[in-house]
Amino acid sequence: MSLKFKNTKRIEGLDSNVWVEFTKLTADPSVVNLGQGFPDIPPPLYVTKELSKATTINSMNQYTRGFGHPSLVKALSCLYGKFYPNQINPNEEILVTVGAYGSLFSAIQALIEEGDEVIIIVPFYDCYEPMVRMAGATPVFIPLRSKPVDGAKGSSSDWTLDPQELATKFNSKTKAIILNNPHNPTGKVYSKEELQVIADLCIKHDTLCISDEVYEWLVYSGNKHLKIATFPGMWERAITIGSAGKTFSVTGWKLGWSIGPSYLIKHLQTVQQNTIYTCATPLQEALAQAFWIDLNRMDDPECYFNSLPEELEVKRDRMVRLLESVGLKPIVPEGGYFIIADVSSLDVDLSEMNNNEPYDYKFVKWMIKHKKLSAIPVSAFCNSEAKLQFEKFVRFCFIKKDSTLDAAEEIIKAWKKQKS
Amino acid sequence: MSLKFKNTKRIEGLDSNVWVEFTKLTADPSVVNLGQGFPDIPPPLYVTKELSKATTINSMNQYTRGFGHPSLVKALSCLYGKFYPNQINPNEEILVTVGAYGSLFSAIQALIEEGDEVIIIVPFYDCYEPMVRMAGATPVFIPLRSKPVDGAKGSSSDWTLDPQELATKFNSKTKAIILNNPHNPTGKVYSKEELQVIADLCIKHDTLCISDEVYEWLVYSGNKHLKIATFPGMWERAITIGSAGKTFSVTGWKLGWSIGPSYLIKHLQTVQQNTIYTCATPLQEALAQAFWIDLNRMDDPECYFNSLPEELEVKRDRMVRLLESVGLKPIVPEGGYFIIADVSSLDVDLSEMNNNEPYDYKFVKWMIKHKKLSAIPVSAFCNSEAKLQFEKFVRFCFIKKDSTLDAAEEIIKAWKKQKS
Ligand SMILES: Cc1ncc(COP(=O)(O)O)c(C=O)c1O
Ligand SMILES: Cc1ncc(COP(=O)(O)O)c(C=O)c1O
Repeated sequence: MSLKFKNTKRIEGLDSNVWVEFTKLTADPSVVNLGQGFPDIPPPLYVTKELSKATTINSMNQYTRGFGHPSLVKALSCLYGKFYPNQINPNEEILVTVGAYGSLFSAIQALIEEGDEVIIIVPFYDCYEPMVRMAGATPVFIPLRSKPVDGAKGSSSDWTLDPQELATKFNSKTKAIILNNPHNPTGKVYSKEELQVIADLCIKHDTLCISDEVYEWLVYSGNKHLKIATFPGMWERAITIGSAGKTFSVTGWKLGWSIGPSYLIKHLQTVQQNTIYTCATPLQEALAQAFWIDLNRMDDPECYFNSLPEELEVKRDRMVRLLESVGLKPIVPEGGYFIIADVSSLDVDLSEMNNNEPYDYKFVKWMIKHKKLSAIPVSAFCNSEAKLQFEKFVRFCFIKKDSTLDAAEEIIKAWKKQKS
Repeated sequence: MSLKFKNTKRIEGLDSNVWVEFTKLTADPSVVNLGQGFPDIPPPLYVTKELSKATTINSMNQYTRGFGHPSLVKALSCLYGKFYPNQINPNEEILVTVGAYGSLFSAIQALIEEGDEVIIIVPFYDCYEPMVRMAGATPVFIPLRSKPVDGAKGSSSDWTLDPQELATKFNSKTKAIILNNPHNPTGKVYSKEELQVIADLCIKHDTLCISDEVYEWLVYSGNKHLKIATFPGMWERAITIGSAGKTFSVTGWKLGWSIGPSYLIKHLQTVQQNTIYTCATPLQEALAQAFWIDLNRMDDPECYFNSLPEELEVKRDRMVRLLESVGLKPIVPEGGYFIIADVSSLDVDLSEMNNNEPYDYKFVKWMIKHKKLSAIPVSAFCNSEAKLQFEKFVRFCFIKKDSTLDAAEEIIKAWKKQKS
């Protein structure tokens, strides 16, 4: 075959993807899908109604401003203005992108150069590593380490960065650290002290911080989400990323945004105008209108930013009990809509599975095949060296309607019976 | 300012963009906008209705398959199967992207390497050049040359490539040629003979062809759109790009697609999974349904692929007469929805304008300011060396409702009166 048909170097080895692989495996509708992170509860009716409305307006089906539809960047600036000490300039400090994914890509392509180092905390949302590699930079990994508290329930707060270890990862080549808070897959919500350690190192080493906060509203009782960009000296060097998909339970809308100082955002804008130029107008308009509705009732329990985490906390607690009922010790998440558990204690016989794969890949594939229940292997969120450290863990998504959780419960109960 | 806040090399100098600039200038609603290529006629009602419908289905608001929503790739494979000698595999030979723009980006990032050369025909849709540069490759330009036929009406068919000149542009470094057919901004529809010259050179030099065919359905009486990928030996080396925005007059939906052999498309898929992962589900579902409607009546005059060009041909002819009425000699387009004209004969006094800009930039800005009529300078579609050659031309978009064209007519008539 012609050499001209080969892939470019920048994407060499970046062709496998956990979502592509597991979306295929769960295409069978008889599989109860607690895998990929999308809700099967309906999104709020006013959100989808706004989309129906937008598409009836002719101009809302045509190109809009490339860096963000005017009504959307205005809504975002109003919303986030409430959380930052500074006002957010809608045109210069915000970029609307194709999902948080598109924001991550734009930020990395805009700011991460060949030869740079980028610190990534393990486990990590899987695209961070290939995106950094595609930019020609070197990812430098640091794991969250868990200190299980004897007897007590496991919590995502047991998973922490060692400040000394983190300090050793910074050097003159470090261009950025990618933070994910609340954290996928553990559900960790970083404390003020933890964020301060990261902020101090960023400032000391003149490092950028790409803060992926797609689960910012999904934080459970007793926890509080803090934005690292609001720490002194951090606005200057942080890009904070959000997602409409996660905010309004419409992952299929694929809208996200980056917020940061104009001298950084303008580079992301340059990437955008040379990759996709603009995002879909009707979705942006509908999202803007949805934001206005909730912006005007931020303190009400009905505000989706309040009602969704309340609804999810019940589901989280149910998942905890369910997993405990088969003898697992799930790590109770402080935020997000995932829960991880070490499944090795189930002692499943995986000898029939492909031995070249990590334990959790084999486990999940076995579970899909034999139990018709799907999840995501946590080693998918690890660099190859760290896979061994996390391969006993599996991630379950709990933003699912009760009937889906019922179905999962039945599977798990039957499984338990079979075992005992 | 910290050096870490600087843009990466790959986007150095790629920050100016004609759409960003001229969208701002025409934000004033009193300006009659014949600039950016978007319809102000409504899209077909069944298309927008399908979007309303899709958003009422819960799963249609959630993530779908990353490389293209199943119902959409199926519809595309059915549709294009009618035009290719081969069948199109929906999963392996199609990638759905964020507009044709996203397809261009994915193809270029996937296949164009640092050090490669890419042939671009001038004038060109403006993003080709920065996208090639962002991939670290060198654009090699060749102009369309016009042979005006004495006395006769100018036509886009007068603008041709010199086959000898084209041959000199190919060498061992040539990785690809980007073709745009029907052509923006001239409206040229390449003939069989012209495409054969390009195909022969691609095959001889083992070169890829990225064929941007977003205006594929918009071809006027006496002309026929041919796909270079259907020429012998070309399927193997061609990526053919289409756009929902242009096909269904919904530029704001930003969906496009690439079609080609699986061993090329798989590299584009790798780029996609590391840039945005997936496109919006409700838009893809609605688009699929819209395609099914028109797929089932391809021979009917009501099929949008037939009715839109018929509607546009009337508008084209009206624009020709209008421009002629002020003494201009428009180049009558064979396809697309733009018309270009040399405006230098209007002898407008541009001395008040910024002298550092090409003639057409000054002219259009003058026209927006003094006549409240906007268009796009053709030199925006040129590399810097070629700007001089095309700077007397201005592009008008005619996919506009009659009232918009009436308003343009009034402006032009008043202008004519003032002059005479
Ligand atoms: C941590 C994290 N970042 C980014 C994304 C992608 O978000 P989007 O769908 O908005 O691109 C996800 C989706 O699961 C995520 O979990
Ligand atoms: C020749 C050409 N290619 C690509 C595009 C971009 O199309 P889309 O809006 O689908 O990204 C346009 C838009 O005007 C165009 O004229």
